[in-house]
This record gives sequence, structure tokens and C-alpha cells, in this order.
Amino acid sequence: MTQQIQIDQARLMSELATLATFTNAEPVSEGTSVTRVVFSPDDLRARAWLKQLAIAEGFEVRDDAVGNLFIRWSGTEPNLPAVATGSHTDAIPHAGMYDGTVGVLGGLEAMRALKRTGLRPRRSIELVMFTSEEPTRFGIGCLGSRLISGTLDPKQADALSEANEPADTAHTLAQVRTAAGFTGDLASVKLAPNHYHAWLELHIEQGPLLERDGIPLGIVTSIAAPAGYRFTVSGLGGHAGALLMPDRKDALCAAAELILSIERHTLATRAIDTVATVGTCDVHPGAVNSVPSRVVLQLDIRDTDPTRRESVMQAVRRDIEELRQRRSVIITEQLINADAPAQSSPHIVELLEEVCAAHGISPKKMVSRAYHDSLFISRIAPIAMIFIPCRNGVSHRPDEYATPADTTLGVEVLASVLAKLASE
Amino acid sequence: MTQQIQIDQARLMSELATLATFTNAEPVSEGTSVTRVVFSPDDLRARAWLKQLAIAEGFEVRDDAVGNLFIRWSGTEPNLPAVATGSHTDAIPHAGMYDGTVGVLGGLEAMRALKRTGLRPRRSIELVMFTSEEPTRFGIGCLGSRLISGTLDPKQADALSEANEPADTAHTLAQVRTAAGFTGDLASVKLAPNHYHAWLELHIEQGPLLERDGIPLGIVTSIAAPAGYRFTVSGLGGHAGALLMPDRKDALCAAAELILSIERHTLATRAIDTVATVGTCDVHPGAVNSVPSRVVLQLDIRDTDPTRRESVMQAVRRDIEELRQRRSVIITEQLINADAPAQSSPHIVELLEEVCAAHGISPKKMVSRAYHDSLFISRIAPIAMIFIPCRNGVSHRPDEYATPADTTLGVEVLASVLAKLASE
Repeated sequence: MTQQIQIDQARLMSELATLATFTNAEPVSEGTSVTRVVFSPDDLRARAWLKQLAIAEGFEVRDDAVGNLFIRWSGTEPNLPAVATGSHTDAIPHAGMYDGTVGVLGGLEAMRALKRTGLRPRRSIELVMFTSEEPTRFGIGCLGSRLISGTLDPKQADALSEANEPADTAHTLAQVRTAAGFTGDLASVKLAPNHYHAWLELHIEQGPLLERDGIPLGIVTSIAAPAGYRFTVSGLGGHAGALLMPDRKDALCAAAELILSIERHTLATRAIDTVATVGTCDVHPGAVNSVPSRVVLQLDIRDTDPTRRESVMQAVRRDIEELRQRRSVIITEQLINADAPAQSSPHIVELLEEVCAAHGISPKKMVSRAYHDSLFISRIAPIAMIFIPCRNGVSHRPDEYATPADTTLGVEVLASVLAKLASE
Repeated sequence: MTQQIQIDQARLMSELATLATFTNAEPVSEGTSVTRVVFSPDDLRARAWLKQLAIAEGFEVRDDAVGNLFIRWSGTEPNLPAVATGSHTDAIPHAGMYDGTVGVLGGLEAMRALKRTGLRPRRSIELVMFTSEEPTRFGIGCLGSRLISGTLDPKQADALSEANEPADTAHTLAQVRTAAGFTGDLASVKLAPNHYHAWLELHIEQGPLLERDGIPLGIVTSIAAPAGYRFTVSGLGGHAGALLMPDRKDALCAAAELILSIERHTLATRAIDTVATVGTCDVHPGAVNSVPSRVVLQLDIRDTDPTRRESVMQAVRRDIEELRQRRSVIITEQLINADAPAQSSPHIVELLEEVCAAHGISPKKMVSRAYHDSLFISRIAPIAMIFIPCRNGVSHRPDEYATPADTTLGVEVLASVLAKLASE
């Protein structure tokens, strides 16, 4: 490398702001509200814009059948397994402008900054923008990285149905990706275990710890194990005036008990690493004067310890049995995903510590309670993650915020470690 | 009257079936699913079709500024206050094909049947199809009859906002009715207390009592007092993985407790006439991996005794106070409507009993726990209602059903009493 790595902070911040304009969300007073659901017009516009940025830089660009986007800077020995970085650009409804995007645009800037130093990397360096890290549209997160790592069956994936549409009008992933221009067999998305030499993802913490401790950078040593469930509560509908209370089997009242049961048993573990969230509650028919006949809840439950996570589910299932009998409702449980935790590569963690030391930073080693595409890439490659602080630990909200200085430092450390890994 | 009243059952059933085709609902296996929200394309098509039926019969047709439709058969003394009947044709999502429609198409057939006997009524007979009896779109039921009776302030009505749209994209009633072609000052909708001589509405029971007792016809002697509230629960949003359980102010968990509090205090009255329903539960941001920051619930609570209804609300408010403090959430209550019960006119009830006796029927005198446009028309005219049985007491569902025989009998009794009232 002929000169020092210089991150173009102004350009990176401007690109983050531009990416935030590809949104279906209305402006709000408390920050920048971003809604960018996978394969929506805004997502497709954001992809086209990102490709243009990469092409302008002379990088190679390719999409796979599920729409994962690969931006490659060829190394001097292009047949060696590449070093990779990346994240996602999709955003849940009314989210913020840093989640995922910092890892994608930061990864691009890291590659550009290395190029500006005059470096010719030995191994190729590849930036990946994963399809549908967020579960908003198809009810399951990390679609792209699950398929890359062979964690999700391609046929099952193509049959996934839009989660927030009625069963009879919902489209499948196969239909939606084809309409978006991503065709071909999903089985072709899977990459071999030796395809990447190493993987490193830059991401905002989405928690309060770095800010609380006044530390500008975190090194993720493990990623918590997430699980997703869908509960359907079926009762008896009817007119809100005429269906008498003793005759009711109100699906929403039963669902309310289920929501509180989940909260109660999660708190009962007294473990800080156990978190459970019912994030959606869809009521059918959903009219003010109609007794709810059916309610669908989606549960997200995570733990660093999968056994403890399962013990919470067992306690909830005992409550469901009791609820079923007492309220004469039907409650079905559908497992959407249940994943094992991931450990970071000690070697990449060591390189991160070296680079931090060279920058005079004492990084915080930490667990990621949020899960990321890195969780799945860990099945096929050595991984690690860099966290940067986010204000008040807030994420998935318009007021999500990371400072330009922290963002720039994260990109600089990312670039340095990518350079080291690419020289191996 | 020169000959006996003959109801054209085949035509009436065929018209009910045709009206059910103006729907935004998909077909379902368990019955005819009807969704016809006020001023939707299907509602407007249904109105145009109904007008054609009336015009073909030689009746006069007029709309008022909120879209109430008046179909008039002029009497020999057209300046006398008219006798009126009618109901509504709008339908909540995934409802059935009898609620409201039996009173509108049945009323039309009653007028046609009287005309076929050669009758020239002394007073005019008027059929009214009310706008938005269902609260689906604007969060408040009986919009048309509230305005006719002066129960709702015209300016307040025009400012009503679409209940199921985000605040920043919701349209007002003023905007929606104008776009639908109903213009002019809403104040002009109100009718004088002497405008109608009498009012009689035919409707399905929407409850199980007539079927249970094997009685083909009910005479409504009073209508229960309904109230509508909207609760907004505001907590703290965040990422489902990263926001730790002790730091949470989950709006959906708080809403779940509120739902159960409402149910508990309603059951605690031990009164069969107290019913309360939370029919909608809108979660923001509504993503599986996001902690709910805001939940909006709509409550419908009814009682024949408004004091008992208010005592339930007071008990719920005490729970809300406790919830606010324990969960650090904000809960706001908005009163949508709170109406007094209505009594039927003893004179019309007496005429109904006479006609039933002449038909060899022992009708059931009953309370309507569902409310109807008749509740509001009672503020400006003597009213009564005729109920016909509906299978299993089911309403607001695709499997809602009334037999052709019961429907025809209801129309026949309606026609007979309209003729008597028109001769007064």
C-alpha cells in the first residue's frame, strides 16, 4: 500500500442521505423515516443507483437469482477465494437510514479508499448487498444470505408467501422476484464453503452499550440465536352488538393473553440476553363492530443460549394449551425459523484488535443480540462484525442515528482489515 | 286497496343476490362474502343499480349532500308528512348479504307490492337508503341517519377522517363525498321533526333468539345504547433483538392488558345486555422484528342501560391509570360516539301486532342489541322495527343467512303496516 487510507466522509454521508430518499415513507419530524421493502419500486431504484456507483468505480457487478448484488474488485490472483464485506439496504416500515446501509455504502467506500491508496489486492475484494435481510415481506429474515449459505431450501424459499397479504391475494417469492427481474433457479444462489476466504460486516450496534460506555467501536464475538414463529388464533366472529358475552370465543382476547404469556415467560428467565417481541397483530375481519374471528401474531424470540430460548417456548405452549381449553379457541403455531448462534473467527477478531490498537482505540468485545446476514455467512466462511455506536441504542426508527465520526472510523477499520485479509 | 298484497319472492331473492355481486370481497366457501365500504367503487355501483330499479318503477329519486338516497312514491296528499322505511346497503369487510339489504330491497318490494294491489296511498311512502350505517370507513356508524336527525354536527362530520388510514394520508368525509359526487352543505341533510309521519325498518335480527324460539318475526320495542371509543397506546419502539426486556415500554403488551380489562369488566356486570368488543388493533410500525411503539384499539360497547355502560368504562379507566404508571406508557381515550337508547312508538307496535294477528303469527317483542339507523330516526319521528330470524344468530359474516320464507313474511308485514300508516 503506497499511502494512508483516507475515508471520504463527506461523500459517504451524502450517499447515505441519497439512499434514504429511495423510500415509501412520509417525512416525519423526529428524523428520517425510511420504508424500503424488498422488491418494492424504491428497493429497485436503490439497487439501480448502487450499481451505477459501483460501475463508475470500475468494479464488476453481478446479481444472483434471488437478487443478491455482488460488487467485485478483482485481485491480482482472482482465482483465490475472495475477501468479502457487505450488508443490506432493505428497511422495515418507518425505519431509519443507518441499519444495513452503513455496511453497504461503508463497504463501497472502504473499497474506493483502498483503491485510492494505490493498493492492488492479492485476493479479490467483494461487496455483497443481500436481498431481504428484513422479514417484512416474506416473514423470514436474511433470505439472501440463507440461500447463499444453503440454510434455506430453494424450493421452500420460492414458495414463501407475502406475510402481510390475505392468503388468497399473497404472491410467492418466485412470483415477486421474477416480476422484479430476478429469474433462474434459486439453487444456483448457494456458494461453496471455500468461496470466501473471510467475511467482515460493518453495522450499527442497534443497542445502547457502546454509547453508554463511551467506546467508538465494537468487535462482535458471537451472534445470538433468533427464532421466528407465527401464531394463528381462531375463534368465533359475529356482530359486536348481537353476539352475547357468554357465547363469545373472541380471538383477540385470546391473542391478548398469548402476548402477555410470552412477555411473562421471557421476563421470568431473568437473563438479559433473552428477548421476545410480538411485532404484528392482524385482526380479522378488523371492523370496529365485529367480534374478531381470527388473529395472526408474529413472534421474534432471541437468545445467546438456544436451550433457554426453547424453555421459554415450552412455557408459552403450556399456557396455550390452557387457553385453548378455557376459551374454546384454536391456536396453531408455525415455526418460521430457528437458528443456532454464530461465533466470530478468532483470527479476524485478532486482526480487528491489531488495527484498533494502531488507531489508539480500545474496542469493546460484544455479543450481537440482533442477527445479521453474517450469522448465515458464518456457515460457509470465517466471519466477524464491526459495530459502531447508535444514539440511545435506537434502531428501526426514524430517529436512528450514528455520528459521521463513528461511521468514518468504522469504515477505516473495515478497510484496513479487508486489506490485511486480501493480502493473505 | 283492491286486492291482496303479494310479495314477489323470486324477484326479491334475485335482487338480493345481484346486490351481493357489488363487492370487493373474494368468494369464500362458507357463504357469500360481501365487502362494500361506503363510497367505494362497489358502493357507487350498487347505488346506481338501486336507482335504476326505482326509476323503472316510476318512483321519484333524490340524493342529499351526504349521499342518503330517497325513493318516493307520491301519495294523493303529497304535502302530508310521508311514511318511511329503509335501511343501508354498505357492508363491513367480509360480511354477509342480508344485513341492511333486506330492509332496502325489502322496502322497495313492499312499495311495489302495494302498487300492484292498485293502492293509491294518501301519504307518500318513502324508501331511504342511508349512507354509512357501518363505521368501517369513518370510525362512526349511522353517518347518514345521524345527520338527518341532527345528532351529528355537520362541520364535525365533514372533518371526520378515514379510520384505517395513517393520519397523514387519510381523507376527510368532505373530500371523499365530494369525490363520490355528493356535494353541497351537510347542514342541508337535516330533516324537520314533522318531516315523517312514521318510520318502520325491516332488518335481520343479528342474534339467536327468534330462531331459538321458532318465531318467524320480532317486533323491536327498544334499541340498546351504543358507544364507541378509540384508545391510543404509545410506548417505546426499537429493534426486537437489541432493545432489552427491562428497558421496554411495549405498546402491544399494554394494549393486550387493556383488551383483557375491557372484557373482564364487561363480564363482571353479569348483565346479558352489556356487550363490549375491541374489533381492531393496529400496531405501529407493525414489523415482526420491531418492538411496537404505538397501538390503536377501537372499542364498541353497548347496553340497554347507559348507566351500567358508563360504570364499565369507569372501571376500565381505573385499570388504564394503573397500566400507565406500571408500564410507563401513554394511553389516550377518544370518545367517538355515545348514544341514548330509543323506544319504539306504541302506536306502530300496535299496528304490527294487529297485522301479525291477521297473518296468524305470534311475534316476539324484543330489544335490539345491535343499533340501527332507526335509533337516530327515533329523534325526529315515531319508529319501530321488524326483525326476521337469521341462522345461528350469525351476522357480519359470509355465512349470514335468512330464509326466503322469513324474508318474504317480513316484507309482507312491512307492506301491510306501511299501507295502514299511509292511510292515517
